[in-house]
Amino acid sequence: MREASRAPAEEDLGFARVDHDRVRRRGYPETILAQSKTCAEILAIATSLVRSGASNVLVTRASAEALAMLAASFRDAVVVPEAQLCVLNPVRGPGVGRVAVVTHRVEDVPVAEEVAYTAEAMGSAVDRRFDAPFASPERLPAWFGTLGSPRVVVVAQGGGGALASVLAGLARCVVVVVPTSAGSALGGLPAMLSALNACAPGVVVVNVDNGFGAGYAAHVINTTGELCGSVVGLERGA
Amino acid sequence: MREASRAPAEEDLGFARVDHDRVRRRGYPETILAQSKTCAEILAIATSLVRSGASNVLVTRASAEALAMLAASFRDAVVVPEAQLCVLNPVRGPGVGRVAVVTHRVEDVPVAEEVAYTAEAMGSAVDRRFDAPFASPERLPAWFGTLGSPRVVVVAQGGGGALASVLAGLARCVVVVVPTSAGSALGGLPAMLSALNACAPGVVVVNVDNGFGAGYAAHVINTTGELCGSVVGLERGA
Amino acid sequence: MREASRAPAEEDLGFARVDHDRVRRRGYPETILAQSKTCAEILAIATSLVRSGASNVLVTRASAEALAMLAASFRDAVVVPEAQLCVLNPVRGPGVGRVAVVTHRVEDVPVAEEVAYTAEAMGSAVDRRFDAPFASPERLPAWFGTLGSPRVVVVAQGGGGALASVLAGLARCVVVVVPTSAGSALGGLPAMLSALNACAPGVVVVNVDNGFGAGYAAHVINTTGELCGSVVGLERGA
Amino acid sequence: MREASRAPAEEDLGFARVDHDRVRRRGYPETILAQSKTCAEILAIATSLVRSGASNVLVTRASAEALAMLAASFRDAVVVPEAQLCVLNPVRGPGVGRVAVVTHRVEDVPVAEEVAYTAEAMGSAVDRRFDAPFASPERLPAWFGTLGSPRVVVVAQGGGGALASVLAGLARCVVVVVPTSAGSALGGLPAMLSALNACAPGVVVVNVDNGFGAGYAAHVINTTGELCGSVVGLERGA
Amino acid sequence: MREASRAPAEEDLGFARVDHDRVRRRGYPETILAQSKTCAEILAIATSLVRSGASNVLVTRASAEALAMLAASFRDAVVVPEAQLCVLNPVRGPGVGRVAVVTHRVEDVPVAEEVAYTAEAMGSAVDRRFDAPFASPERLPAWFGTLGSPRVVVVAQGGGGALASVLAGLARCVVVVVPTSAGSALGGLPAMLSALNACAPGVVVVNVDNGFGAGYAAHVINTTGELCGSVVGLERGA
Amino acid sequence: MREASRAPAEEDLGFARVDHDRVRRRGYPETILAQSKTCAEILAIATSLVRSGASNVLVTRASAEALAMLAASFRDAVVVPEAQLCVLNPVRGPGVGRVAVVTHRVEDVPVAEEVAYTAEAMGSAVDRRFDAPFASPERLPAWFGTLGSPRVVVVAQGGGGALASVLAGLARCVVVVVPTSAGSALGGLPAMLSALNACAPGVVVVNVDNGFGAGYAAHVINTTGELCGSVVGLERGA
Amino acid sequence: MREASRAPAEEDLGFARVDHDRVRRRGYPETILAQSKTCAEILAIATSLVRSGASNVLVTRASAEALAMLAASFRDAVVVPEAQLCVLNPVRGPGVGRVAVVTHRVEDVPVAEEVAYTAEAMGSAVDRRFDAPFASPERLPAWFGTLGSPRVVVVAQGGGGALASVLAGLARCVVVVVPTSAGSALGGLPAMLSALNACAPGVVVVNVDNGFGAGYAAHVINTTGELCGSVVGLERGA
Amino acid sequence: MREASRAPAEEDLGFARVDHDRVRRRGYPETILAQSKTCAEILAIATSLVRSGASNVLVTRASAEALAMLAASFRDAVVVPEAQLCVLNPVRGPGVGRVAVVTHRVEDVPVAEEVAYTAEAMGSAVDRRFDAPFASPERLPAWFGTLGSPRVVVVAQGGGGALASVLAGLARCVVVVVPTSAGSALGGLPAMLSALNACAPGVVVVNVDNGFGAGYAAHVINTTGELCGSVVGLERGA
Repeated sequence: MREASRAPAEEDLGFARVDHDRVRRRGYPETILAQSKTCAEILAIATSLVRSGASNVLVTRASAEALAMLAASFRDAVVVPEAQLCVLNPVRGPGVGRVAVVTHRVEDVPVAEEVAYTAEAMGSAVDRRFDAPFASPERLPAWFGTLGSPRVVVVAQGGGGALASVLAGLARCVVVVVPTSAGSALGGLPAMLSALNACAPGVVVVNVDNGFGAGYAAHVINTTGELCGSVVGLERGA
Repeated sequence: MREASRAPAEEDLGFARVDHDRVRRRGYPETILAQSKTCAEILAIATSLVRSGASNVLVTRASAEALAMLAASFRDAVVVPEAQLCVLNPVRGPGVGRVAVVTHRVEDVPVAEEVAYTAEAMGSAVDRRFDAPFASPERLPAWFGTLGSPRVVVVAQGGGGALASVLAGLARCVVVVVPTSAGSALGGLPAMLSALNACAPGVVVVNVDNGFGAGYAAHVINTTGELCGSVVGLERGA
Repeated sequence: MREASRAPAEEDLGFARVDHDRVRRRGYPETILAQSKTCAEILAIATSLVRSGASNVLVTRASAEALAMLAASFRDAVVVPEAQLCVLNPVRGPGVGRVAVVTHRVEDVPVAEEVAYTAEAMGSAVDRRFDAPFASPERLPAWFGTLGSPRVVVVAQGGGGALASVLAGLARCVVVVVPTSAGSALGGLPAMLSALNACAPGVVVVNVDNGFGAGYAAHVINTTGELCGSVVGLERGA
Repeated sequence: MREASRAPAEEDLGFARVDHDRVRRRGYPETILAQSKTCAEILAIATSLVRSGASNVLVTRASAEALAMLAASFRDAVVVPEAQLCVLNPVRGPGVGRVAVVTHRVEDVPVAEEVAYTAEAMGSAVDRRFDAPFASPERLPAWFGTLGSPRVVVVAQGGGGALASVLAGLARCVVVVVPTSAGSALGGLPAMLSALNACAPGVVVVNVDNGFGAGYAAHVINTTGELCGSVVGLERGA
Repeated sequence: MREASRAPAEEDLGFARVDHDRVRRRGYPETILAQSKTCAEILAIATSLVRSGASNVLVTRASAEALAMLAASFRDAVVVPEAQLCVLNPVRGPGVGRVAVVTHRVEDVPVAEEVAYTAEAMGSAVDRRFDAPFASPERLPAWFGTLGSPRVVVVAQGGGGALASVLAGLARCVVVVVPTSAGSALGGLPAMLSALNACAPGVVVVNVDNGFGAGYAAHVINTTGELCGSVVGLERGA
Repeated sequence: MREASRAPAEEDLGFARVDHDRVRRRGYPETILAQSKTCAEILAIATSLVRSGASNVLVTRASAEALAMLAASFRDAVVVPEAQLCVLNPVRGPGVGRVAVVTHRVEDVPVAEEVAYTAEAMGSAVDRRFDAPFASPERLPAWFGTLGSPRVVVVAQGGGGALASVLAGLARCVVVVVPTSAGSALGGLPAMLSALNACAPGVVVVNVDNGFGAGYAAHVINTTGELCGSVVGLERGA
Repeated sequence: MREASRAPAEEDLGFARVDHDRVRRRGYPETILAQSKTCAEILAIATSLVRSGASNVLVTRASAEALAMLAASFRDAVVVPEAQLCVLNPVRGPGVGRVAVVTHRVEDVPVAEEVAYTAEAMGSAVDRRFDAPFASPERLPAWFGTLGSPRVVVVAQGGGGALASVLAGLARCVVVVVPTSAGSALGGLPAMLSALNACAPGVVVVNVDNGFGAGYAAHVINTTGELCGSVVGLERGA
Repeated sequence: MREASRAPAEEDLGFARVDHDRVRRRGYPETILAQSKTCAEILAIATSLVRSGASNVLVTRASAEALAMLAASFRDAVVVPEAQLCVLNPVRGPGVGRVAVVTHRVEDVPVAEEVAYTAEAMGSAVDRRFDAPFASPERLPAWFGTLGSPRVVVVAQGGGGALASVLAGLARCVVVVVPTSAGSALGGLPAMLSALNACAPGVVVVNVDNGFGAGYAAHVINTTGELCGSVVGLERGA
């Protein structure tokens, strides 16, 4: 019987139930948002996931303390302080497709790195381009041409948020915008509204500073037509 | 020389410059947003695009009067009153890939149809599913299973906007949310914020009531890995 | 005469008047919101209430320092650091009816515990269920079935706030939502708006992070038809 | 087998799926929100529900035209123009428990009537009290005393929204607030915020002008401990 | 000549021009808002005003450090730490008229004290009443009766802000509301909106936490018909 | 006994209870806000108040139709179409004290007239000054000097709302601001915020377009020290 | 003496005081905002200004009816229906300096024309450029180069508002942004926020849809160093 | 060939590309916003710009630590702690034209100084006037007259923001407003809205606290007609 032969779908840790079935359902294991959790909680969930055999487990929004704890606890953990994240049980390959991650302000780089490492951890090839010459619009098209043919472009943008609107006029692929709050009044709202109201079609938006969400969506788009598309339904058993 | 042999990139109509080069750059011709234009302006732009050889030219947010004018002026126009749009010079094929367009409220259907017709006009195969059993959550997973394996799911949602959050927990592909303002206080804002803050990753958002934008993005995602990805750069010429 | 024989309705502490008559009027003694008070003020009010004979006196939003002071001053105080509250002069019984307190994010647990301890302190039987499988919607109905027949469900939800909308489609009883600000941009607003605009009827809302208010309302609903319902009116005396 | 012998759970009308299973699951049939539907759509859904045997089917936010159509189509329909609603296949009994519906401004009466008729259609005994002497605070306690012992009080309040805060200080039962937008700048927001931030506990809130939602919640609270409380779970079959 | 015989209207301190003419024009000397000023700046302005002969000079929003500096520098300074203010060159009399300052939450007392000390410093008799029995509405009218006949009532209110709406139904005089942000989400906005939208007329509002502004306005209203009313006009010379 | 000999405190009209006791309590009869009432409702309330002996009864926000009805029903009604109001059973005297009503934009005159007629109906002498030379700041002080010594200044201001801030620097008396929405984006919000944040003390604010509220408050302030100040308390009987 | 020999500074029309002194003070006569005024009021003010000798008097936001009335009343009036304005007593010269008025959406043209006609009426040479190729960013720099050397660029932009941010990276002169509400959710707010937060310096902003304000500012900037700069001061007389 | 003979347009520092071409394009070198950068990043960019020959390089929003580092690294750096900025490779001249920088609150001086130093660093003559007698409106016109004839007035204003509205009625030149958040609720929003809605034309606005942006725009306006106006276009080469 199917239910019986399958590994247990979840582990109950008391304070949380860990979802071991996520890879089967959504193609990627559960991610640990470290932000509001204690080191002990993070460690317990991480151990549960790694023991279940999940690979490339992401821990995001992790403090320096949490990253140190993870590095000490998991020998092969890939720790990325600049993006406040860590990848457990990493299985790195060449990367499929191509995701371009773009920004033009130094203060948007941490969010952009969260995008890039997330997509890489999921298996995408990532092209980091943090030097978009937005202040020199006449150089922008040629610069964009050097990106070649990415399957998706992610723009991390703060301030008034105009960069994505311009790039969407140049790109054939989808442009995913992650508005950033760095150095902005109103917490990234202007950049978010600018992207949501962009005149050029082909722009989609995730929440302010949600680099993980942008990287996740970018990977899924990047692999559309290959890995993507099957859905979970109770009737799929037999 | 390539630049010389190419058709003129645009036509100057006096009140607007029509972009004939859009297909080459972005893979799809310019779309006419009829909302704030006179019938004469719409006709002039439409004629310019059709004469330039563009096919499947979309006219969106068109009034009944504008649709009647287009039907009278372009013999083979496909007029879709329920989505307030029209397709000129239509070239229909079987549709590639698969886009599922989902909603669960009758009042969201007009926006959902704008999504569906837009994606179809661009060449995607579309699966309209306007009967999501959201009020009966225990039936939702099985219902979602009947969708099979779409490459992208678009959710048109108003009210409190929870549907997309649930579907994102079931889907392998990206979920594009178009929040709707129909029958909602605060103009679709709750549905938009709910989607932007969804706990499940893989959700991206377009502006309130922007069915065209959602359909456009859905088509581009749907064809990622096939048609998508090349970018325009000035240095790419010869 | 009734007015004459009654104990004094209040005690004047100089900086505040303590309401000793609250149990008679509303069925539960005055609660001490510790948040903006000094330890000396908290102690004075607490002493006044306990001396008046009030039992199960709640002190909420108490700092670690305040909790330590109360534990030292009142021998039988029940101190609950994880919910930042304390119960003085506790009289515990088996608990009446049943209140289910539900959440699915670890970061919402403190608010959920404030809900649960408040309802318990007032006399309700409480079922803590902090592991709602929201990320696996196909498991949600079965999980919800294990709750049996609560008289009221309280949902502590942050993020996009979709959980209550789904549960309301499954529940016969009222669903009380306490939106949380933990780990959320916009201070819990998306979760609040999502609940206020939920499509399924039977959802009511309290203020962001107001776990005490949700627990209080849940207890009163839970005991409707038994303890609840009489009102105070000046003409009722004599 | 129970599943097999049960009537079909829903009827597919093409433009909507009617949920015939709602009574079993939630204790009350599906309600028809007429606001954004055509007369033909309303009629089709209403006919489907009535044919399935559902009684006391509510149609809310109905235009005069829709009400006339329903009166002509369903002989025993109870039409309530002042609350813009209609009850189909009515089965009236004495009404259980007691819901007090309170307001103090003439302009809030339509929303208050929507509350009252909704609760009555569901089976609650309702006490309409639209003359709260809010402008004469010294008369308010005595006036409130004349309500006796309702199981729940619903307050429809616009303007600055202070009435519910005062009544919550007098009531033992829960106070449900439905903020109204009538005659208010900012669309009922001040009344909603006032209720959400009320100092007295025991106040819960529904969305602005959502009289149906307030009446629905009031009925469910009113019948807590009797009809209320059982939940739907997939494991309950067999 | 009038201009010549008058003392200089202002003193230029380099970083600020001190207005010595304020008493003549508005009936009260310039007040020093200490909040964004250094101790040296405060001292310089204070010295300039005191030397010009101004009495009852107010320094508001002063830090503990600034208050200590002022106490050391001006021997007869009246320092009020609980209201974060200080009165220099005090000339106390019996106080004219009567201003009642009312609140019902301990956390609103600091703002209420700023109101009270400001009005006293300007010359009003002030009646502090920080124990309004708002949670016991049936006691509110009698409590209010004990105030006698104030010429103006100032209400410092946070939370949902309903107190002023009730008192305005009892008072003959004007009710000035100063909304407070203490212990409130949304920074005092609900209390402000509640007061601005109060159904009872006779309510006027100052900015959130602006205890000084409320006390100033209360004094001016309190002395209307006696000291108040003359205006400054350039043509008034002779 | 006083309570026994008094006329009934209210009349129950079925749809509303008319407060006949308002003059005794607050010094002025109940005002009829016509905005959301039918002509029949307005007539019934008006008749009840006039029959009870109330004089100078105000009907505000009245449509042309309602004003015509009132003029036909009450022979001596004073009808003021430009302020959308009417005074029933008028008893005009010379007017006490002095209220200056000020504006500088033609579009603010209707609200300013509502202020002026309200204060006059209550018994204040009113000085209409709708020509403040705000665009010529150098003429403003002299113009303000021509007002003499009003006891209160009311400013009706829209746009950016700076006028009250300037006048408050010139006035000894209180400045009441009624922000207006006429010709403004954001519904009068900028004018309201400007007044609430005015640097000069002595400014108080009522709600946007609330000319009645401003006029009412102005009259009460104007008569402070004479008519004003006694409060209602239940213990005052005997 | 100069003051004595000068014409009267203003004319009192009863409902408004017309400022005849504006040209001397600010370099341009008073403008008539027709929006909230009757035809009779507009005519009276217009007549007063024209009789005083003012030339190039602007009437803005005028209805078709008002424009017809002005055309009939002033023989040489220049009526511009597409910008809803009219110029009375026109004195046209060659135009000084150069103001470029730029937009890229047909729906922004009415506001752009209000900018252009305002600047022209004041005396500036205006270059209308309503065809910015924003959707083809690689053509934007060359297109901008064809503008030559304007002294100020005004951008009328709706939607997400990115155009000004790009142009500011190309321009040496100031870029004035007038955000437009046409075809936008949120009333032009995204375009306004985008401009206020633009990364490139040299961008200044006027209110949404305030074409007159943008044109006025553009003219004053355009003539800086020539006509501009003298200020009015009372001490300048004699 | 021009492109070949020109110095490299930018230097790639790895974490950022420094734009050496900015002077040619926009007339002023790139400015370093220090706020979100490390000292090492600031130093690297500063060194790159200074080595490229750029003069008067601005570093803004610099911490005390960053300023100390710059003072130690660049011998002739002009360090301005009160405006949190620094000018590298300073080349001071007499200053052209005249920019008046105006404020009336001590707490707005830091932003006003950022305006003033920015304009001076770019080459403008600046007149600091931080003592506007706003609280004494009758002195304001004379005070403004002492400014003479500036080419542009910049107003740094917080609070209710009325100062710019008044000055715009006195000035011939443009008034640039930089709203400040110092000592204000709502983060400078009231001052921003007041300026955007000012009745007097000729007012333009930059973002809250953006003293650099205001100073930059002021300098460009100040030099209009002399240095200003030429634009960059790719086709302008030879």
